[in-house]
Amino acid sequence: MRIAIDAMGGDNAPQAIVEGTLQAARANRDVTLVLVGDEEAIQRCLGSERPPNIEIVHTTEVITADDEPVRSVRRKKDSSMVVAARMVKEGQADGFVSAGNTGALMTAGLLVVGRIPSIERPALASIWPTFCGKAMLVLDVGANMDAEPLHLFQYGLMANAFAKELFDLKKPRIGLLNIGSEPGKGDKLRKEAFELLQNGSFDFVGNIEAREAMYDKCDVLVADGFTGNNMLKLIEGFGLGLFDRLRDVFMAGTLTKLAAFVLKPGLRKFKKTFDYSEYGGAPLLGINGAVIKAHGSSNARAFEMAIEQARRFIAGGVLEQIRSDLEVQQQ
Amino acid sequence: MRIAIDAMGGDNAPQAIVEGTLQAARANRDVTLVLVGDEEAIQRCLGSERPPNIEIVHTTEVITADDEPVRSVRRKKDSSMVVAARMVKEGQADGFVSAGNTGALMTAGLLVVGRIPSIERPALASIWPTFCGKAMLVLDVGANMDAEPLHLFQYGLMANAFAKELFDLKKPRIGLLNIGSEPGKGDKLRKEAFELLQNGSFDFVGNIEAREAMYDKCDVLVADGFTGNNMLKLIEGFGLGLFDRLRDVFMAGTLTKLAAFVLKPGLRKFKKTFDYSEYGGAPLLGINGAVIKAHGSSNARAFEMAIEQARRFIAGGVLEQIRSDLEVQQQ
Repeated sequence: MRIAIDAMGGDNAPQAIVEGTLQAARANRDVTLVLVGDEEAIQRCLGSERPPNIEIVHTTEVITADDEPVRSVRRKKDSSMVVAARMVKEGQADGFVSAGNTGALMTAGLLVVGRIPSIERPALASIWPTFCGKAMLVLDVGANMDAEPLHLFQYGLMANAFAKELFDLKKPRIGLLNIGSEPGKGDKLRKEAFELLQNGSFDFVGNIEAREAMYDKCDVLVADGFTGNNMLKLIEGFGLGLFDRLRDVFMAGTLTKLAAFVLKPGLRKFKKTFDYSEYGGAPLLGINGAVIKAHGSSNARAFEMAIEQARRFIAGGVLEQIRSDLEVQQQ
Repeated sequence: MRIAIDAMGGDNAPQAIVEGTLQAARANRDVTLVLVGDEEAIQRCLGSERPPNIEIVHTTEVITADDEPVRSVRRKKDSSMVVAARMVKEGQADGFVSAGNTGALMTAGLLVVGRIPSIERPALASIWPTFCGKAMLVLDVGANMDAEPLHLFQYGLMANAFAKELFDLKKPRIGLLNIGSEPGKGDKLRKEAFELLQNGSFDFVGNIEAREAMYDKCDVLVADGFTGNNMLKLIEGFGLGLFDRLRDVFMAGTLTKLAAFVLKPGLRKFKKTFDYSEYGGAPLLGINGAVIKAHGSSNARAFEMAIEQARRFIAGGVLEQIRSDLEVQQQ
């Protein structure tokens, strides 16, 4: 198995990317990790260490966070991200991982690697913690803005294949994000998607309300990209805001500071449940290869977890599973 | 000014409803509140007290939380909710407030009271606390499932008129919920609504991301009913879950319990910011009268606040403002 790594993408690149890659290389001796980027910079980060399962491919360009996605992917042909994507396209890697520009990654996936035949739209999936200690896969969180019923159905089919490997489940429960749990609820898109999902070759558990979704009602939550993206940002903003406000309560006086000190270990553990670095990356499903978007602010640990996702995707044969499920569906 | 009160709707009806009405009647001597419902039950709740500005209209039926909205509004013609709505239609009241079945309330508003001419779809607005101590009006949170660009525009126009009175603002900032702040972002619906909102006779501040919305970026946040409803439920579920988990941290041992005791006043104050009973109700905008939905679990205080919203709506001439803004827009 070979995974290409965009060494130059992300707020902490290349240092955190190279460190995370080193850790992943040590943990998986049978996986070859190809660091794609400025060779000198990568060498500096690697130092004297270089496990035999790490390779370097030198590139001269970088797509930055501010670059316009489509234009930069088209023009910066020797950028670390585009070269990593091309390696997947040409079979030199089974997948690629990047913490760089999300729009550019989606574009590179779509235009350079290409879609799985019969998949209409790729979807970006996000791993959300729930209040029951388990995580769920939510998709689409923003790859496709104007979703149609068939798109939502295919999100369910693809996420089913990936959730099996990611969460080690035989039959992941696929839910449709909706405003009510009864069949027939929601807008036109949801009503039509419900009908399709009901006939899928997976365990469709029906409509799930956002409130319920946080309490282990499903392993995969299917949403359109607009709603999914808004929900993701709402949770991020709400979570941060709540913790900020708690800090104000803790810092109010000497006694409350003492109290906060006592509670610190418990709170830290609790906050860790909601720490995205524990969950690694967001897979871009529907692309003809394992494409994982790591969080832009990934540290080494978060990036290592994103590589682990790519490894599971490839080792579990997720692509093959999606292709065969699509065939069953078309019969 | 006369406001009809559905005395029989809500988890705590009629007791909490009558109590909240009594408080509102005492606070506003110039407003007549008409309690609509079973006269004997209402009298029992009122006891010997009965301010001169409280009237009773006797009804024999009740629409329950489980009733199918359209059917129950059509059939239960002598229900407290339908009679209250009819009073608005017939000019015997300027508005009505109910903590009953939300679907039935929207149906009664639409079918019994009727729409403001030229308004295509009514919208349910919700008052959200933000992390800056200010509240904002979010709409639509579920009245209309398949929104079109013109609907979103009219939500902005209507909420502008109401936000002026509710928040005592000269020029409320109207934002469009979107996945990015730059113009041109989002799905087809958002792109087209953006163009319309830009030409509105109000202060349109552009696209607002969900994350940013929690930090006082706008006074009105315009969303389609599907997204708005999901976000509302996500916040409810997320907020409850976080507080549950915090309780676990506090209750872990003797020392943490002591610490929690010290922090209690601060935490209570913080939780109060997110207590929906402080914000009262959800106005159904676009109906030819002040129609306020109080939370189903309203206590007396929450119901009193919902009446206060209706009072502001009527006293501020929100209906007249909407009608005149619509005229300006059509020129």
